[in-house]
Amino acid sequence: MSGRFISFEGIDGCGKSTQAAMLVEYLGKRDIAVEHTREPGGTPVGEGIRDALLASGSVTPMAEAHLFAAARAELVAKVISPALAAGRWIVCDRFIDSSLTYQGVARGLGIDAIWELNRGAIGECLPDVTVLLAISVDEAARRRGTEPDRIEREGRDFQLRVVDGYATLAERFPERIVPVDASDGVDVVHRRVVEAVGA
Amino acid sequence: MSGRFISFEGIDGCGKSTQAAMLVEYLGKRDIAVEHTREPGGTPVGEGIRDALLASGSVTPMAEAHLFAAARAELVAKVISPALAAGRWIVCDRFIDSSLTYQGVARGLGIDAIWELNRGAIGECLPDVTVLLAISVDEAARRRGTEPDRIEREGRDFQLRVVDGYATLAERFPERIVPVDASDGVDVVHRRVVEAVGA
Repeated sequence: MSGRFISFEGIDGCGKSTQAAMLVEYLGKRDIAVEHTREPGGTPVGEGIRDALLASGSVTPMAEAHLFAAARAELVAKVISPALAAGRWIVCDRFIDSSLTYQGVARGLGIDAIWELNRGAIGECLPDVTVLLAISVDEAARRRGTEPDRIEREGRDFQLRVVDGYATLAERFPERIVPVDASDGVDVVHRRVVEAVGA
Repeated sequence: MSGRFISFEGIDGCGKSTQAAMLVEYLGKRDIAVEHTREPGGTPVGEGIRDALLASGSVTPMAEAHLFAAARAELVAKVISPALAAGRWIVCDRFIDSSLTYQGVARGLGIDAIWELNRGAIGECLPDVTVLLAISVDEAARRRGTEPDRIEREGRDFQLRVVDGYATLAERFPERIVPVDASDGVDVVHRRVVEAVGA
C-alpha cells in the first residue's frame, strides 16, 4: 500500500508551517503513519542549501532554480519516495510549485522551463494534493514577526508576482492544487485543510 | 571584440590546474588579458557548493548534477560572460564536459539528459576550445599526492567510466574538444596545449 503525498504552498506568512503541523497531528490521531518534511531542507545537503540560499547576498535566478532542484532530488530520493513506498504519508512544506512560481513566474524564467529543469529531480513523484494557502500580501506581511530573510526583503511587488504565479498554477493543475482561504483563524483554516486533503 | 573561452578537462591528476596556470602565464606574456577560474568554484556560491560536494558523505547523482549546474550558472553570469564581453580570455578548470562525463556517463544519467539540464545555465556560452588532457588512470593516480576526496575514493572503475565518457564527448564535439597527450613532462604538454589553443 502506498502513502499519500500532501504539499503545502503559499507566500511567506500564509501559515504553511502551522497548518502542516496541525495536519500531521490530526493524521497521527487517526493512526495514519505520517512524516513531516520541508523544502529546501529535509536532508543534510538540503539544509546546507537552505542556509546558503537564505544567507546569500545575491544568486542568479538560474542558479537558485538548480539549487532548489538539487535539494528536491535529495528529498525525493531519500525521504519522500521511501516513505510513500512504505505506506506512510508525507506532509511537505513547499515542493515543485514553489519553484514554478518563485523562479518560473516571479523571476521570469518561465513555468515550462522550470518544469523541464525539475523533471529528473522529481521523476513520477508529484503530490496527491497540494494545499495552496491563499492570503493577501499585506496580511501575510502582518503575520511575519521575524527578521526578513533575503527573499522576504525583495518586497511587495515580488510577493504579488508569486501570488499571481500560484493562481496560474491552480488553474493549470486543478486536479492537484486546492486553494484554501487562509485569512481566518488557524482552527477554521485547519478544518478547510482537512476537507481539502480528504483525510 | 570578444575574448576566447578555453576550458580544461580530464580526470583528477591529469594536470589541469598546472597546465591552465601555464597557459594563463603564457597568454599574459603575449599581452592577452586573461582570467583564470574553475568549476564548481569561481564564485562565492560556487565555492560553497564545491566545499559541500567534496565534504558530503553521499549525494544523489541528480542532486549532484543540479549543484554543478547551479555553480555553472553563477560562473557564466558573473565571471565568464562579462569577461568575454569585455574582450578578455577565460581559462577555466572544468566546464560542461565534466558534468556530461561524470554525471551523464559515469553516474549513468545520460549525456543528453545532462545536456538538457544545463541548457539554461550556460545559454550560448560554450568554450571555443576544450583541452582534454589524456592520461591513463594509473598514471593519474600516481600523480595525485593529496588525500583522496569523495570522488577520488570511488576508485578505478569510476575513473575508467569518466575517461571513456571524455572519449565519447571528443568524438561527438570534434570542432571544440582537442585531446592532448598529457603523459609527458609539463613543458612538453604545455607546448601541445598552446598549439591546441592556437594562441
